[in-house]
Amino acid sequence: MAVREKVFDVIINCFKRHGAEVIDTPVFELKETLTGKYGEDSKLIYDLKDQGGELLSLRYDLTVPFARYLAMNKLTNIKRYHIAKVYRRDNPAMTRGRYREFYQCDFDIAGQFDSMIPDAECLKIMCEILSSLQLGNFLVKVNDRRILDGMFAICGVPDSKFRTICSSVDKLDKVSWEEVKNEMVGEKGLAPEVADRIGDYVQQHGGVSLVEQLLHDPKLSQNKQALEGLGDLKLLFQYLTLFGIADKISFDLSLARGLDYYTGVIYEAVLLQTPVRAGEEPLGMGSVAAGGRYDGLVGMFDPKGRKVPCVGLSIGVERIFSIVEQRLEALEEKVRTTETQVLVASAQKKLLEERLKLVSELWDAGIKAELLYKKNPKLLNQLQYCEEAGIPLVAIIGEQELKDGVIKLRSVASREEVDVRREDLVEEIKKRTSQPLCIC
Amino acid sequence: MAVREKVFDVIINCFKRHGAEVIDTPVFELKETLTGKYGEDSKLIYDLKDQGGELLSLRYDLTVPFARYLAMNKLTNIKRYHIAKVYRRDNPAMTRGRYREFYQCDFDIAGQFDSMIPDAECLKIMCEILSSLQLGNFLVKVNDRRILDGMFAICGVPDSKFRTICSSVDKLDKVSWEEVKNEMVGEKGLAPEVADRIGDYVQQHGGVSLVEQLLHDPKLSQNKQALEGLGDLKLLFQYLTLFGIADKISFDLSLARGLDYYTGVIYEAVLLQTPVRAGEEPLGMGSVAAGGRYDGLVGMFDPKGRKVPCVGLSIGVERIFSIVEQRLEALEEKVRTTETQVLVASAQKKLLEERLKLVSELWDAGIKAELLYKKNPKLLNQLQYCEEAGIPLVAIIGEQELKDGVIKLRSVASREEVDVRREDLVEEIKKRTSQPLCIC
Repeated sequence: MAVREKVFDVIINCFKRHGAEVIDTPVFELKETLTGKYGEDSKLIYDLKDQGGELLSLRYDLTVPFARYLAMNKLTNIKRYHIAKVYRRDNPAMTRGRYREFYQCDFDIAGQFDSMIPDAECLKIMCEILSSLQLGNFLVKVNDRRILDGMFAICGVPDSKFRTICSSVDKLDKVSWEEVKNEMVGEKGLAPEVADRIGDYVQQHGGVSLVEQLLHDPKLSQNKQALEGLGDLKLLFQYLTLFGIADKISFDLSLARGLDYYTGVIYEAVLLQTPVRAGEEPLGMGSVAAGGRYDGLVGMFDPKGRKVPCVGLSIGVERIFSIVEQRLEALEEKVRTTETQVLVASAQKKLLEERLKLVSELWDAGIKAELLYKKNPKLLNQLQYCEEAGIPLVAIIGEQELKDGVIKLRSVASREEVDVRREDLVEEIKKRTSQPLCIC
Repeated sequence: MAVREKVFDVIINCFKRHGAEVIDTPVFELKETLTGKYGEDSKLIYDLKDQGGELLSLRYDLTVPFARYLAMNKLTNIKRYHIAKVYRRDNPAMTRGRYREFYQCDFDIAGQFDSMIPDAECLKIMCEILSSLQLGNFLVKVNDRRILDGMFAICGVPDSKFRTICSSVDKLDKVSWEEVKNEMVGEKGLAPEVADRIGDYVQQHGGVSLVEQLLHDPKLSQNKQALEGLGDLKLLFQYLTLFGIADKISFDLSLARGLDYYTGVIYEAVLLQTPVRAGEEPLGMGSVAAGGRYDGLVGMFDPKGRKVPCVGLSIGVERIFSIVEQRLEALEEKVRTTETQVLVASAQKKLLEERLKLVSELWDAGIKAELLYKKNPKLLNQLQYCEEAGIPLVAIIGEQELKDGVIKLRSVASREEVDVRREDLVEEIKKRTSQPLCIC
């Protein structure tokens, strides 16, 4: 939880920096709300027992509830983030950060705006968060559903096979082109020459120059959808250059993304290396953030089908928690699970009342303080507690100190002790622990 | 959510000030874990559909999962807080902050410690939080299950009727003694003279002097359990005096608390007045925080029945959210839902690229900044957006400003505008919005 809090802090700070408000939705959704939104994965939805009333399921992601919320509240315009748990009856894989109950961190911009401005901001946010978390080098692959569909059309894929061929393409980050081609031809019944035409495209990736090149591709440029997608990507790269992140972005024609609801630009961030310890399963090059534009989803929940264009991103925090934890373990860094600044201790017996009085004074002054819940603890035990809990300071009360109106302040690390006048103690502790000014 | 975040901030700061770490447990528990822990209210538990595997329910509170977690991980010693949602198939009452899905904020101290020290800290925490939230005057009623049981014994209540008579007593904060007596005699079959003897006790409340008086009560002082409870309460008052909160505490013999698992001191904080608006249902004097000692619960989950003494408290945040929201509405105070410090705006057309460059510079410097997602927004619309969203500053780019290397910084409230050199803009915004130093 201590690691999680640090990661969430970075993410929430970034979301707020970009002017997002936070919303929450119930963990339940009507079963019918989730039906037909996740394709094959619908079997992974947790249902509640029918105990009377409406049939309910646990949310599977935060995007469908967000779209339902927008439609239900007739919102046409919002920039929000939502950090919450979602539920999937999947096979857990602990080292990869895959669980049945896990956090999603979503940021979405809903509303009718000028092309590619919110989309560019979503990519900027992904880059800011991944940089702040210091996970190492990363790359954001970008593509557009309209380019994919246009490409399938000009290559001769029948309309009915777009989605299934799309899933095959999506596997290119894990397996070779030959294997993907075999699947397309063998399993999905595509003509080999159609697959080869697709292969020529999807093996390409690059920067804005590839966008330019494809804008002049004799076939692709004849397809209206593809042309729109390419035009938008060109604009997107222009904005990303202004945001100073164009070097992190790769236009990758093999990026397809699994979910059906994307309608425009799609993106996925991958780490270029992940820390591995001897004897441990490598974390792989998996995605740590992803998202895209989904202009049709809100309309599915509106009785009149009114559309609200949306673009968003989701940070793969569980995977990030795993990476950060493994890195900390490798560095043998111990993460403190509390923030206590000072332990109130006594050097002699019969000083419980004095300890209670002092710790109460410190609490009232906003100092994070503890004492051992014993009448007469040994000083050694009190010092040991500080070592274990990482508490940096000890305020020691003794009979002499009480007479002199001072407290002995000991630094646990250096073992140095100084007498501090009781009225100066709070200031001295604040100075030593450089408590941030904003904590009230 | 904005109100919630402010309330949670106060609570979490307090929990951390007292050295607690944070834990999380799954929203699911095995159905059998929850069975038999909540008495009659068990019918309110949400079960998951049997989709294969273990039978699961949604957690009903955070205390039972905490006890299960301690036993499962063989922890004998922890001070933790847990803020999470719990689920009850109850009748919602929105104005009272009673929902089917709601937050609980729990702080508990587990471990074998010297008497009443952790118990006193729990009461201190409750007082700190209620004071910080500025909910108005409050009172914390304190009693002890051992005193109640001892009292029932000496009054002549049969052992088998202790719990049901306890529930009757618990109603004394809502109905008169006569009604409670009628229930005891009429419904629960107690002899009238037994009820009268109970009545003599439970209508008493006071401070430490009442504890002293009962310690000398000829009958009660003969009961071992009652004597232990009274002795501990005397010690508790001594510690509460050292903590400076004895004046907030009332020893109240009518406080019984519903849950079965309490074994020692119990407490409940009530507001002495709550804000009411004309035409609205009053919030009543209900409890806003409560807790107590439960030394037997962990043992129920340990295969060898090993006990871990626990004491804790729960803050009734949903009720507090309602109170704070109603107070803000009454004051017509608008709560900002975002924290944006500055809107990057332009005075002329064709400056989108310049706006994107500037907003990106500000984000990279940690400033919370927004821009309108339009190519050529009107200045008036940009200023209106600030008014609506409560954004205090506007950084206006114009052609002249670009030539001069300055940005026009406008205060939305005063409408004053000054030219700030671009390289000084970040510092100037930080100064004007006095951004706390700890935000990174």
